[in-house]
Amino acid sequence: MQLDFLFNPKSIAVVGASNDPLKIGYDIFRNLTTYQGRVYPVNLKEREVMGKKAYRSVQEIEDEIDLVVIAVPRQHVFDVVKESAEKGAKGAIVITAGFGETGEEQWIAAEKKIVEEARKRGMRIVGPNCVGVMNTVRGLNATFIMPARAGKIAFISQSGALGAGIIYKTVKEKIGFSKFVSLGNMADLDFSEFLEYLSGDSDTESIMLYLEGVKDGRKLLSSLEKVTQKKPVIVIKGGRSSAASEAVSSHTGSIAGSWEVYGAALKQAGAIIAETIDEALSMSRAFSQPLPKGRRVGIITNAGGGGVLVSDQLEKHGLEVPRLSKGSIAELKKFLPPFASFRNPVDMIASARGEDYRKATEIFMRDDGIDMIIEISVVPTFAGIERDEHARGIVEALKSSKGGKPILALFMAGDVSARAREVLEAEAIPVYERPEDVAIAAKALYEYSKAKRRVNNEL
Amino acid sequence: MQLDFLFNPKSIAVVGASNDPLKIGYDIFRNLTTYQGRVYPVNLKEREVMGKKAYRSVQEIEDEIDLVVIAVPRQHVFDVVKESAEKGAKGAIVITAGFGETGEEQWIAAEKKIVEEARKRGMRIVGPNCVGVMNTVRGLNATFIMPARAGKIAFISQSGALGAGIIYKTVKEKIGFSKFVSLGNMADLDFSEFLEYLSGDSDTESIMLYLEGVKDGRKLLSSLEKVTQKKPVIVIKGGRSSAASEAVSSHTGSIAGSWEVYGAALKQAGAIIAETIDEALSMSRAFSQPLPKGRRVGIITNAGGGGVLVSDQLEKHGLEVPRLSKGSIAELKKFLPPFASFRNPVDMIASARGEDYRKATEIFMRDDGIDMIIEISVVPTFAGIERDEHARGIVEALKSSKGGKPILALFMAGDVSARAREVLEAEAIPVYERPEDVAIAAKALYEYSKAKRRVNNEL
Repeated sequence: MQLDFLFNPKSIAVVGASNDPLKIGYDIFRNLTTYQGRVYPVNLKEREVMGKKAYRSVQEIEDEIDLVVIAVPRQHVFDVVKESAEKGAKGAIVITAGFGETGEEQWIAAEKKIVEEARKRGMRIVGPNCVGVMNTVRGLNATFIMPARAGKIAFISQSGALGAGIIYKTVKEKIGFSKFVSLGNMADLDFSEFLEYLSGDSDTESIMLYLEGVKDGRKLLSSLEKVTQKKPVIVIKGGRSSAASEAVSSHTGSIAGSWEVYGAALKQAGAIIAETIDEALSMSRAFSQPLPKGRRVGIITNAGGGGVLVSDQLEKHGLEVPRLSKGSIAELKKFLPPFASFRNPVDMIASARGEDYRKATEIFMRDDGIDMIIEISVVPTFAGIERDEHARGIVEALKSSKGGKPILALFMAGDVSARAREVLEAEAIPVYERPEDVAIAAKALYEYSKAKRRVNNEL
Repeated sequence: MQLDFLFNPKSIAVVGASNDPLKIGYDIFRNLTTYQGRVYPVNLKEREVMGKKAYRSVQEIEDEIDLVVIAVPRQHVFDVVKESAEKGAKGAIVITAGFGETGEEQWIAAEKKIVEEARKRGMRIVGPNCVGVMNTVRGLNATFIMPARAGKIAFISQSGALGAGIIYKTVKEKIGFSKFVSLGNMADLDFSEFLEYLSGDSDTESIMLYLEGVKDGRKLLSSLEKVTQKKPVIVIKGGRSSAASEAVSSHTGSIAGSWEVYGAALKQAGAIIAETIDEALSMSRAFSQPLPKGRRVGIITNAGGGGVLVSDQLEKHGLEVPRLSKGSIAELKKFLPPFASFRNPVDMIASARGEDYRKATEIFMRDDGIDMIIEISVVPTFAGIERDEHARGIVEALKSSKGGKPILALFMAGDVSARAREVLEAEAIPVYERPEDVAIAAKALYEYSKAKRRVNNEL
């Protein structure tokens, strides 16, 4: 599926662009003023919008138009879509709400008519009732919300407001996305088309979905089966409970279906299921690392309690925290103090320096009994230990070894860990703040590696 | 148990206080320089520490001493404890590590001897191998880490480094504590003494424990039974898995015990069990609200997906999201737009204003079918909606109603929600950022209210 007209449009018309900050067309147009492509405001009443000449219609624009963003009252959407298709636009994002999701026959029919009109001339529709589309790599923000931070996760959300909330949240938490799509009512384009496009997108390492329900389950599953062979797809399924599944049908007009059916089918198709937004983000971020060969996790820590909580979580998820080999223990004893613990987790105690992290990581990299490494640090604020030296030690070990094993980091010290996080993330080592997050990330890496191996063996 | 000598000492001696930033006694003394009580540095070699006259020993100080903080090499700890007890100090915090937790007989014995010596003269010991003690209300930070933010949760941690990590994390996340204690090896004072003290502490609304294992389980359970009748106690139990329980015995010298035994007994004694640090914090924060009369939750939202995810989580925890009464629906229809959803969750859609939150909350306050209210907002950044108006609407409703029902808020917009959060928290309404956190908070309120009702009925 070719969707470049959405993510890399050469030219965009914003219908409903406005100088009035109380209108959504104000936010959309303002967000697009910094885009590298050509952007045209369309407004019946205003002569210019934010200093740019405004057009009375899409037709009037003396340029080819790839993409039209539509934020006009619902009774005008059909006309704008028709006109855009006639103009030769390849895609339209319909922000306007009040169609299928109302449950009213008149507006369900209107939504259908819009899609039929567009398809006559090969134009595709995102929405209606959506937040829009972002491509952080190109600086494209065709939405009315703040831009996402750039990163390697593509995020497709069936809920607009929740999608917005996740964008805001990840800006605060410094988690980035390659692309963002708010699907809205999915009258035309839905999960499948985006999944297939993103599976070939070189800026995307993993794909995260917020899914409530779809009309055509088979189509989704068949796309998932194909796409998950190339990239991990992490799914948050909203609407599992009875109250929630009623809410789903009202706010998206889709059928939530029973979780028993959905959950099993999604997993069967290769998707990784997340219980919460944070689980999904934690898992999606893990795929900047290589896949592990097995389920055995080696843990290095300077905080006993951190090691304990991570071990608990890993075991809950079916991963192993095996004893270390005698050889590794002997090597650790050469430089760690006698109060350290030489089991797994290796507790290097609070006095541990960057050098200790480096050496311990190198030993774990060589130990054949370990498939994945989790590095835990409560960055100390005392005794002259530098705030990023643990992180630097880990990065040195990564560079000096042949690598090959995934490293995940748990740095549990709030803002005290900020510098350490930057050092690690510059080397694509994902950094987590909570034991359960790093554990679920390890689980996702293991699950996906297992699924991949199975597929490869079958081939 | 009277522990004012720890939390409100009139005078403190810091043995090992130092001008050398590489020593832990530097951080401890620096943290205490702003304390309102009298603080004396003790150091054999230095004449002054941070501009204050240094004493060669505790005995030399020409003042009564309530509390001694000890950060000297382990071979000197016994002498300092003896001298402090002879001086008449009521308590000592032994920061120094290398005792029972090493598993070495010599140092296990040394730890015992220290406690025996202290007890001869009625002096009590915190630690050894601990981070120290804080009382945020008095500005007391007798630790080597940064001060916690002030709040209403008391936090007792068996793991020092993890405790420190949680302090750093909560500073970043703007969650506050009334008191903090790092128990270390619990050679003398342990969970029980602190629980009993905190149950009578007017600055503390709830008590949070990070527990790995204790030597005397009966003593802990008997304290819990008493204390939980007065205040909720939330327990994170580390060391449930086999790898972790081995790690526990090494880093605290305690026995983790099997989770089956611990979990059931803790619950039986009235403790609320948290699976993770964030669950424990979320639950502890909920108790600024009144207790609910039942399990029926009413949800108000401007984001459909948020309502869906919260409903899923609530149902998972055994709470109910009931249909609304016809009366309430009729009242909601008077002011909400036709696209809104009048089920529960009430989805007021993205255009909802502060007034809508106020009116909907007032209706929920009056509806006899609702025991608790969850307010969800993805604070909009568009169309001229003010960033704190939803919060202000909720506060107005709280003030105009008789109250009585707990309100919990889920504001899912990262820093965009910052102002709203301040407005709500000024009225003691706890604000969460994740669906699972607000749901577990509701569960904790319900569980504790149920336990309280049962106890009252039995009396």
